[in-house]
Amino acid sequence: MFTYTRKANYYETDKMGIIHHSNYIRWMEEARIEFMDQLGFGYAKVEELGIVSPVAGITINYKHPVRFGDIVDINVKISRYSGVVQEISYEITNRTTGLLAATATSKHCYMKDGTVINLKHVLPELDSIFSASFHADSD
Amino acid sequence: MFTYTRKANYYETDKMGIIHHSNYIRWMEEARIEFMDQLGFGYAKVEELGIVSPVAGITINYKHPVRFGDIVDINVKISRYSGVVQEISYEITNRTTGLLAATATSKHCYMKDGTVINLKHVLPELDSIFSASFHADSD
Amino acid sequence: MFTYTRKANYYETDKMGIIHHSNYIRWMEEARIEFMDQLGFGYAKVEELGIVSPVAGITINYKHPVRFGDIVDINVKISRYSGVVQEISYEITNRTTGLLAATATSKHCYMKDGTVINLKHVLPELDSIFSASFHADSD
Amino acid sequence: MFTYTRKANYYETDKMGIIHHSNYIRWMEEARIEFMDQLGFGYAKVEELGIVSPVAGITINYKHPVRFGDIVDINVKISRYSGVVQEISYEITNRTTGLLAATATSKHCYMKDGTVINLKHVLPELDSIFSASFHADSD
Repeated sequence: MFTYTRKANYYETDKMGIIHHSNYIRWMEEARIEFMDQLGFGYAKVEELGIVSPVAGITINYKHPVRFGDIVDINVKISRYSGVVQEISYEITNRTTGLLAATATSKHCYMKDGTVINLKHVLPELDSIFSASFHADSD
Repeated sequence: MFTYTRKANYYETDKMGIIHHSNYIRWMEEARIEFMDQLGFGYAKVEELGIVSPVAGITINYKHPVRFGDIVDINVKISRYSGVVQEISYEITNRTTGLLAATATSKHCYMKDGTVINLKHVLPELDSIFSASFHADSD
Repeated sequence: MFTYTRKANYYETDKMGIIHHSNYIRWMEEARIEFMDQLGFGYAKVEELGIVSPVAGITINYKHPVRFGDIVDINVKISRYSGVVQEISYEITNRTTGLLAATATSKHCYMKDGTVINLKHVLPELDSIFSASFHADSD
Repeated sequence: MFTYTRKANYYETDKMGIIHHSNYIRWMEEARIEFMDQLGFGYAKVEELGIVSPVAGITINYKHPVRFGDIVDINVKISRYSGVVQEISYEITNRTTGLLAATATSKHCYMKDGTVINLKHVLPELDSIFSASFHADSD
């Protein structure tokens, strides 16, 4: 589990006076990327190896709004991992209000030269890191 | 069922060379708002009545990428409707490639003065429109 | 001169209730790209030739706000052109209110393999198109 | 002078592989808002008083690209101030490459109930803060 913290920006608000829901998807990406950095294998390094990790799916449930200037804590963990499919789970808490802002998941695969790959075979170093993190958080 | 068509913008791409996944969430909103216009009760009119419609949840499955300049057709319909909860379903097709780009749903409630309302009671005109559209598309 | 028309999206508003100023920069890009399409040499074609056109500078003056659902007309023209440097001018009018929303310019160069190029030598076909458009609009 | 530091996000890149130029406008806002927080009169507090500060104009010159994961330092200072008109200047340096990324200015006015106000009369506390900061940085 990793917690990524950031502040809600003015340009992320909408006319309802709250953070527009589409921005949470971007915050999830920020959190995921910081998480990978912290695991010791940054996403930039993955891409340098010619591997990309498109998002295959997202689910998100919005609970309580976030407003301009609020601090959010995003808990990230690998909730499913097989070498081929990876699911990341997120819990976004509004530290300013103390309320749960959203829960979400994102599903990812890894691709090289247009083909889905199994990290176990193609990038065992990253596979070990993901496996270890997954097992640590699923206990 | 309503089809909203738009072109993928350059600023919506990312370094993978494809449209960033977060933008689909915004396209869904565009499609939903055009859909409401076409139903004859635009979202601006809803807000003028002091009613807002926050997004309660989203699910999206990404199928094939969309690239800069591609034309996408977004089919929108009301897939669930009770007066209190509304679910909209989307099918995003890349007209340029002929491939399915994504399928998605969004869940909405309607609120006035901070409270969830039942459109049947508070805005029967809009409720009738939504009910009729829902029934027409669920046949 | 070319006019690009588009509607202001909900997700482009901010908590002030108006379109966030950063989005105008994106609208300018949309207008510029449609303009090039209309000139008969789309930007996608430029990039396929290994040429990119980074933005070197922008100036924008905001006049009257644009709100959700407003229709804006963006007049685009080449206001300066030398083969190496290109300046595009924009006039954004809010058709819904009849008021001038903004005037702006963007400056561009063209690059191949990391070097600034002169379109006169590297892409004479596009150079002729830009020259003709520039001269037509500067009369 | 205040320095705001942030990392360039993946979703801020475009298909050229660099940060899309429109995002710099948003970073400038982030820097400006943090700057005001540091001056001791946050922008949220301004808005709570019924005062808004629309952007009246922007100029920006892009120098060297910023890429995903790069750290940027944004120097912000008040470069002009009269109580009615405020100009903020920015110098964005890419700490990762050591190169200047952009220089920019933004012009602001302050409004209450739809009218431009003079902070000297309407909000003397903020006026003093801005004046002091302006004079400290213009020496």
